[in-house]
Amino acid sequence: MCGIALSYELRFLDTTLRDGEQAPGVSLSLDEKVAIARSLDALGVDVIEAGSAITSEGERKSMKAVANDGLEAEICSFVRVVASDVDAALDCDVDSVHLVVPASDLHIRIKMGSDRESVVRKAVEVTEYAVDHGLIVELSGEDASRADLDFLEDLYKAGVDAGARRLCFCDTVGVLTPEKAFQIFSRLSALPAPISIHCHNDFGMATANTVASLRAGAAQAHVTVNGIGERSGNASLEEVVMTLESLYGMDTGIKCEELYPLSRMVSRMMGVNVAANKSIVGENAFTHEAGIHVHGILADTSSYEPLKPESVGRKRRIVLGKHAGRSSVELALRDFRINTTEEQLNQIVQRVKELGDKGKRVTDADLQAIAETVLSTQKEPKVKLQQLTVVAGNTVTPTASIKLQVNGIEKLEAGTGTGPVDAAVNAARRAVCGVADVRLEEFHVDAITGGTDALVEVWVTMAIADRTITARGAGADIIMASVEAVLEGINRLMQLEEARTNG
Amino acid sequence: MCGIALSYELRFLDTTLRDGEQAPGVSLSLDEKVAIARSLDALGVDVIEAGSAITSEGERKSMKAVANDGLEAEICSFVRVVASDVDAALDCDVDSVHLVVPASDLHIRIKMGSDRESVVRKAVEVTEYAVDHGLIVELSGEDASRADLDFLEDLYKAGVDAGARRLCFCDTVGVLTPEKAFQIFSRLSALPAPISIHCHNDFGMATANTVASLRAGAAQAHVTVNGIGERSGNASLEEVVMTLESLYGMDTGIKCEELYPLSRMVSRMMGVNVAANKSIVGENAFTHEAGIHVHGILADTSSYEPLKPESVGRKRRIVLGKHAGRSSVELALRDFRINTTEEQLNQIVQRVKELGDKGKRVTDADLQAIAETVLSTQKEPKVKLQQLTVVAGNTVTPTASIKLQVNGIEKLEAGTGTGPVDAAVNAARRAVCGVADVRLEEFHVDAITGGTDALVEVWVTMAIADRTITARGAGADIIMASVEAVLEGINRLMQLEEARTNG
Repeated sequence: MCGIALSYELRFLDTTLRDGEQAPGVSLSLDEKVAIARSLDALGVDVIEAGSAITSEGERKSMKAVANDGLEAEICSFVRVVASDVDAALDCDVDSVHLVVPASDLHIRIKMGSDRESVVRKAVEVTEYAVDHGLIVELSGEDASRADLDFLEDLYKAGVDAGARRLCFCDTVGVLTPEKAFQIFSRLSALPAPISIHCHNDFGMATANTVASLRAGAAQAHVTVNGIGERSGNASLEEVVMTLESLYGMDTGIKCEELYPLSRMVSRMMGVNVAANKSIVGENAFTHEAGIHVHGILADTSSYEPLKPESVGRKRRIVLGKHAGRSSVELALRDFRINTTEEQLNQIVQRVKELGDKGKRVTDADLQAIAETVLSTQKEPKVKLQQLTVVAGNTVTPTASIKLQVNGIEKLEAGTGTGPVDAAVNAARRAVCGVADVRLEEFHVDAITGGTDALVEVWVTMAIADRTITARGAGADIIMASVEAVLEGINRLMQLEEARTNG
Repeated sequence: MCGIALSYELRFLDTTLRDGEQAPGVSLSLDEKVAIARSLDALGVDVIEAGSAITSEGERKSMKAVANDGLEAEICSFVRVVASDVDAALDCDVDSVHLVVPASDLHIRIKMGSDRESVVRKAVEVTEYAVDHGLIVELSGEDASRADLDFLEDLYKAGVDAGARRLCFCDTVGVLTPEKAFQIFSRLSALPAPISIHCHNDFGMATANTVASLRAGAAQAHVTVNGIGERSGNASLEEVVMTLESLYGMDTGIKCEELYPLSRMVSRMMGVNVAANKSIVGENAFTHEAGIHVHGILADTSSYEPLKPESVGRKRRIVLGKHAGRSSVELALRDFRINTTEEQLNQIVQRVKELGDKGKRVTDADLQAIAETVLSTQKEPKVKLQQLTVVAGNTVTPTASIKLQVNGIEKLEAGTGTGPVDAAVNAARRAVCGVADVRLEEFHVDAITGGTDALVEVWVTMAIADRTITARGAGADIIMASVEAVLEGINRLMQLEEARTNG
């Protein structure tokens, strides 16, 4: 949708729900599998490998629900070279099976305890069985990148003769290189059925290997959202699609602007965080801090952005820190309607850098505080914490009492919650109710690792009407850090509201 | 150190401390910069780009400390084509400067508001200035992958004539492809000075592009630990090194077994998590869950591992979940000295899958509980929670009282801590002291995102003597989830201790 048309069609088989779900510790519920399948279908993938039917009763229920959801995409099950796996797939009403056959001598020996001839015989047998039962068969050579290429061709040809509609080359342990991939697919694309490429990312080469294979004639790419999968994962859907679209000018038929929302959904449902520096979908992919870059971005977005963030469903973000330059600070101040002289701006930049030097991300609240100091416009905070007490345990409802000074008036409130943090924040919000009707839009605590006394950083995004602000709290006490962040956010929002009312 | 020797030497410039630190929100202290530099030096990189001296006073102090730490590696500062940047670098006592000159017409216009001729003149001027002051100059073309190649060659040649010792090609926005990189470097490697490749990862191609460039004659690769850097980051040190070593059989001179410890250190100090599915250094890179794979791994580790985990300083990990097969469950049970019949093993596998189907990672404690149910060896938990009360706030020391039944005897204890979770866990550990002297080896809370009532999952690793166990707690109340995990861990450890004493 975002490139130029080619004379042939590229196809995508997405295996987020199978190879992706095989990532350690990942398991999706039926509803989650259906929701992800729907999004993949809307995105435009051709085949959805929905799972491996033999895995468990729960897996079969989920796969059946996906298969009967009326999607346009072909729904596929992973199967081993065993008739009972095909039976399990049939139970799930799928359209096709991805029949995976050990192809390297190592895998033939270990997985089948057998030899090349028996493997071919078995593959033919199971292919015929599946085809006879009305299934489309994609016959896959497992560990193909370590297999004898002549044998692999024999296996594929026998499979096609037995009725396999498509073939697949699995780089099971991720040892392919782009040159090797190009060479191999220049040969395999002459086979009598279209062939897929299935890459793993053990060396960080999965995207490059997949693209090289497609350029040499592979007809279909196996991919997963966020590159999730066993070990280091699979070729990443978003990287392969955007590389083809942007760097090779191909039209993939994928709705690129849906890539980011899908990435977020899969990350949330799988409970697997995407790295901040992940290509295309990572938090930082369109975020700019360094002064020199922000200057360029403001002058011409293409100077430091190879892609428009909107093309993959995202927005650009400018953050402040030790590398901040005048341009980025000026931009942020303008957003808060703070006007400065040149000299004041220099001082503010200086202090932002100092804060950054201490290892801090500079939040909106930090910047405002710095600007106020420099402009000598500091005001007493409107909301001050006087006392907070929280009680929690297994036999009490988590309860907090809070005493705040709000605009000079003492307010005492209490609140309960699902836990002590929730109770404390509820009490705080109740205490400012009527004065500042804030919404807590996002509450984020970075992963805590180490001991129970580890430092906790809390980030909040808070809003009044259409005005949003970020603030931070930190400390070894998660309750205090949370309340600190929330009160900081409330104070900053109240000041902005006041400025708006006054001017 | 882990490949075969080649006739020429590959060099690495690590820019974790410069381009890596420019990642949004990252800022390292002086001590952290020095610690990372020492590890990079021990690993065997040739050049350490320690920062950009002009950035801030704090940056200069850190860089000076690195430069005067007596390391073997050449210490380098990033500089723009400005004499004052070179002066700042000189203040830091570095050996060399990485002089970055806009090379594409877009960058020349936006960054310099100037034309090609003026840029070359300025580059020559600043190169001569730096060389005159005793610095080694690596002259870099910024945005070189979008520059006119003829102009780029002119710029490089002028730089070499002015005294630049090395050159560098920056793929500033990550738009290179392996084919393009190979083509370009086949030409540029004929220049009169060795040339580096500096890749960004906007499309997930940085590793492949770096490797292609080196194969075509680039003399040095710019890399960062964990691929950290602006936006989607830079070419990742560990991926480039291991691809060259393992897939191309080259000897990089890098101490590969130090790659993982270094990755952990940088992640911790930068506060940037590495994705579980990151190649080489991600949590899952050598973790196996799927039954079919675990069977293979147990038969021959090379079947599903392209690398020995020990070669990069890691260990293999087998985890249980819905894809668990008999092999992995059997292995885990053996580790707990639990013997089963075939039929019992089948039942246990079945229940592990059921728990996995619910979206859970299966901990050691879960597996033991399942095995006990199947073997009808359930015992009353030795430690039972009767009452927990925690008080916290801004004017009180976080304090917890806990009433436990330990081996049928009621124990009442109190504890304080840095926060309410710490206080509760301290009280619990004190209550079992003398009966079970457990150590809390790791306490981990996944990142909390959403609202203050979000579900929290707590994972603990606990130990008695040399016996270690993992357990989990979950809920909307972080205190209760933590105490649940800790008590579960204590119970399981006490049972294992008892089994050891009895048998």
